[in-house]
Amino acid sequence: MKQLTFSLQSSLLLISLIFDTTSVSLKIPRLSPTGGQFIHGNYWTQGRPSEALSSAFDPKDLQTCYYNQTLDHFNFRYDSFNTFQQRYLINSKHWGGSNISAPILAYLGAEESLDDDIPNIGFLPENAIHFQALQIYIEHRYYGKSIPFGSTEVAFKNASTLGYFNSAQAIADYAEILIHVKKQLHAEHSPVIVIGGSYGGMLASWFRLKYPHVALGALASSAPILYFDDIVPPETGYYSIVTKDFREASETCYQIIKKSWSEIDNIASKPEGLSCLSKKFRTCRPLTTSSELKDYLESMYAMAAQYDSPPNHPVTVVCGSIDGASSTDDILTKIFAGVVAYFGNLSCYVTETHDGWAWQTCSDMVIPISVNNDTMFPPYKFDLDEFINNCKATYGVPPRPNWVTTYFGGHDIKLSLSRFASNIIFSNGLRDPYSIGGILEDISDSVVAVHTKNGSHCLDIFTSTHADPDWLVNQRKSEVRIIKGWMAKYYADLQALQ
Amino acid sequence: MKQLTFSLQSSLLLISLIFDTTSVSLKIPRLSPTGGQFIHGNYWTQGRPSEALSSAFDPKDLQTCYYNQTLDHFNFRYDSFNTFQQRYLINSKHWGGSNISAPILAYLGAEESLDDDIPNIGFLPENAIHFQALQIYIEHRYYGKSIPFGSTEVAFKNASTLGYFNSAQAIADYAEILIHVKKQLHAEHSPVIVIGGSYGGMLASWFRLKYPHVALGALASSAPILYFDDIVPPETGYYSIVTKDFREASETCYQIIKKSWSEIDNIASKPEGLSCLSKKFRTCRPLTTSSELKDYLESMYAMAAQYDSPPNHPVTVVCGSIDGASSTDDILTKIFAGVVAYFGNLSCYVTETHDGWAWQTCSDMVIPISVNNDTMFPPYKFDLDEFINNCKATYGVPPRPNWVTTYFGGHDIKLSLSRFASNIIFSNGLRDPYSIGGILEDISDSVVAVHTKNGSHCLDIFTSTHADPDWLVNQRKSEVRIIKGWMAKYYADLQALQ
Repeated sequence: MKQLTFSLQSSLLLISLIFDTTSVSLKIPRLSPTGGQFIHGNYWTQGRPSEALSSAFDPKDLQTCYYNQTLDHFNFRYDSFNTFQQRYLINSKHWGGSNISAPILAYLGAEESLDDDIPNIGFLPENAIHFQALQIYIEHRYYGKSIPFGSTEVAFKNASTLGYFNSAQAIADYAEILIHVKKQLHAEHSPVIVIGGSYGGMLASWFRLKYPHVALGALASSAPILYFDDIVPPETGYYSIVTKDFREASETCYQIIKKSWSEIDNIASKPEGLSCLSKKFRTCRPLTTSSELKDYLESMYAMAAQYDSPPNHPVTVVCGSIDGASSTDDILTKIFAGVVAYFGNLSCYVTETHDGWAWQTCSDMVIPISVNNDTMFPPYKFDLDEFINNCKATYGVPPRPNWVTTYFGGHDIKLSLSRFASNIIFSNGLRDPYSIGGILEDISDSVVAVHTKNGSHCLDIFTSTHADPDWLVNQRKSEVRIIKGWMAKYYADLQALQ
Repeated sequence: MKQLTFSLQSSLLLISLIFDTTSVSLKIPRLSPTGGQFIHGNYWTQGRPSEALSSAFDPKDLQTCYYNQTLDHFNFRYDSFNTFQQRYLINSKHWGGSNISAPILAYLGAEESLDDDIPNIGFLPENAIHFQALQIYIEHRYYGKSIPFGSTEVAFKNASTLGYFNSAQAIADYAEILIHVKKQLHAEHSPVIVIGGSYGGMLASWFRLKYPHVALGALASSAPILYFDDIVPPETGYYSIVTKDFREASETCYQIIKKSWSEIDNIASKPEGLSCLSKKFRTCRPLTTSSELKDYLESMYAMAAQYDSPPNHPVTVVCGSIDGASSTDDILTKIFAGVVAYFGNLSCYVTETHDGWAWQTCSDMVIPISVNNDTMFPPYKFDLDEFINNCKATYGVPPRPNWVTTYFGGHDIKLSLSRFASNIIFSNGLRDPYSIGGILEDISDSVVAVHTKNGSHCLDIFTSTHADPDWLVNQRKSEVRIIKGWMAKYYADLQALQ
């Protein structure tokens, strides 16, 4: 399990993967459960891998498996690449076994390699013990070691190979693997709880809705399932929460960031201006437009807010350095101090690459994020036509912005689900800008919202530490209590029906 | 609406379409709501199109529309045939309008043209009046006028064009069209009840499960959703019910049919035997194997039992002629008398063709029907490997026999759905051999079974007649009462949430 240990090298690699500055996905920040770790590096991990982690999670307990997965669940023709090897990992250390139909906790991968998730998703190992649960972690297609078409190069070549890369296919993968594992273990009656964070949280809640015969319940952490189509009102949004988080941390910091954009544009418009900016921000490559820098900074602020978790609070860290710079420093020197504070002392900054998330935002994950006038960012109105054109220019195909609400719903969600569905926890932390698209009110007795005022993105499913505040400890306890309630009813039903 | 009137010509065409004697689908009788009409011709329609029909249904009230449908909902690449024209028909004569969010009754097409369904599915026009409901009828892809790839010839060419022809794609079509129609009519809050029979009944129940945000409830008539994988125990099955129906009608008839198979084989094994059989059964083309004749007879008995409805009871009609033949006639002369009684006096008998259902049984609709020793038929054990090989030989691709239970569930259905899902009626008639795969017990308070001892396939959704027995009238009344209950709760919720 060498690949599960972290190195500076892999962290840097991931930083470079995270900032996707292609125009199409610019305003749709990655929806990843642990991507943030790599971004706010030192400040996030400091003090996080705790005694709880070391006692509950041991990479040696994980068995790596591959499933011969159907590439296209919804088409019955035959392609030359009809299947691919999909990775999943099993930890049966605490499992009570099939004789007592002991439960299964299944982590549904999101848009990153499982190697990045497993060491951080403490919810499974920490709870496996008292649930006597089997743990299973399933990697999302097109990430990590679960690449179709034999190679990343072919898989990501163009829309004809990327076309199979979407949420409906992904949850069908999860269904096949969970059914397969249960059959192999003769554990047909073991209740499965699916757990996911961020995009993976959306998948978890959708999985319970679409495959109730496979999963008894879902813990959907920080899942913005309402951030599609026109459900979230345009006068609010992701960047409004980012701004609120920064302004609450420091009014002066907020003001400096707010002024910085025109300062960047101002310098960029001068002769040698981009070269000057490249030097000032120590960019890895010379800037070719001021947007590259602005997108990078926007993403950094977004990630700092999204993962603004205790004990270190990256927003406070960034603002501490921006505010703490010498009062004689110019605005952009202060901003750069924030960059260094956030990323640590790197040899260079401002990188760009493509990743899977960019494709996903150009297929089904069309999250219409605008940047309103009341934020600290340059305003930006999401323009669907422009977005579609950008996707077409990049991938040759248009996205399907209505597909998520067609397939999974979202409009009038209380009306449609209050008398349908059961056993879903939607957990959120309100400091997380994606919480604006989350379920923050109970839908019914068993489709419930559990949120915390000071929580951040996916915090509840991350490994617990001794420094965790009471509100976080209590949130996790509530979740476990609710899941136990589902299981108690299930086992009573099982007994009654046998 | 010329195409909705029936002619002998179209009936004959459909008879020839119904008997698919390719080996792959041999034992999986068509799951069609009104296919039976064409099969037992005179005896079924006699007395059926009633005053109720003529008052409730007028073809002139139907508006024919076409929707630019997505060919592949689950793949985002671009194909040259990316969409196709899908037919749906609307009848708004009785609709109360969007102002009062008046309901929508939506008929989900099965494996036949809508032209065959609409004049017979009385449930919609008869109930539209008191529900003040809009009626919509949606044709299933690859049937009727809803053919992808520009022509039937191309669409049915091979697995590469047939691959998109499956149940998951079909219900996604229905979701897109229903959302589109509601939007067009500003009827976003109009509750939709989906109604389907046979395979269309399976689609209706699955639609409610997968798209609860689109349909408030489903009436699934004669939907054998459990007839997949190993859910129906092998010691019973479709042909056991066919046999029971015949034996109840006449013990002698049952005995004659039971003896007839060896007699056919006996003659066929002699020199000129097939030619002799061809003459005896007045076949349209000379028989090349005795199986052609046996398959044809098996299908006829199956259809007679499946649609064994009052007032004419085709099983009684067939047995009447078999029993009524001269006692000096040989067995096969008696059997032929049954054929003539069932089909009427045609110029020739025993036809064979391919149709869409054959493909469907070789993709997702793998219904493992065996013929047990206790039936009046030659025993046959469903052999999955053999079935897969036959499909491969015919279409070049294997079927996916576990896909329906993976995607839609079925195993332990009470355990999975008793605390999930709501608002589904599973209606069955126990004379229908497909009822063996239906839901015959309530799953919960609102996922309920309504069956009748003497009912046949889809009888409850057919147009009512003055000759309908009380048990049938009462079954329909129960269904309407249950649906009214769903709507009452929905409108209360709608008011509370607005």
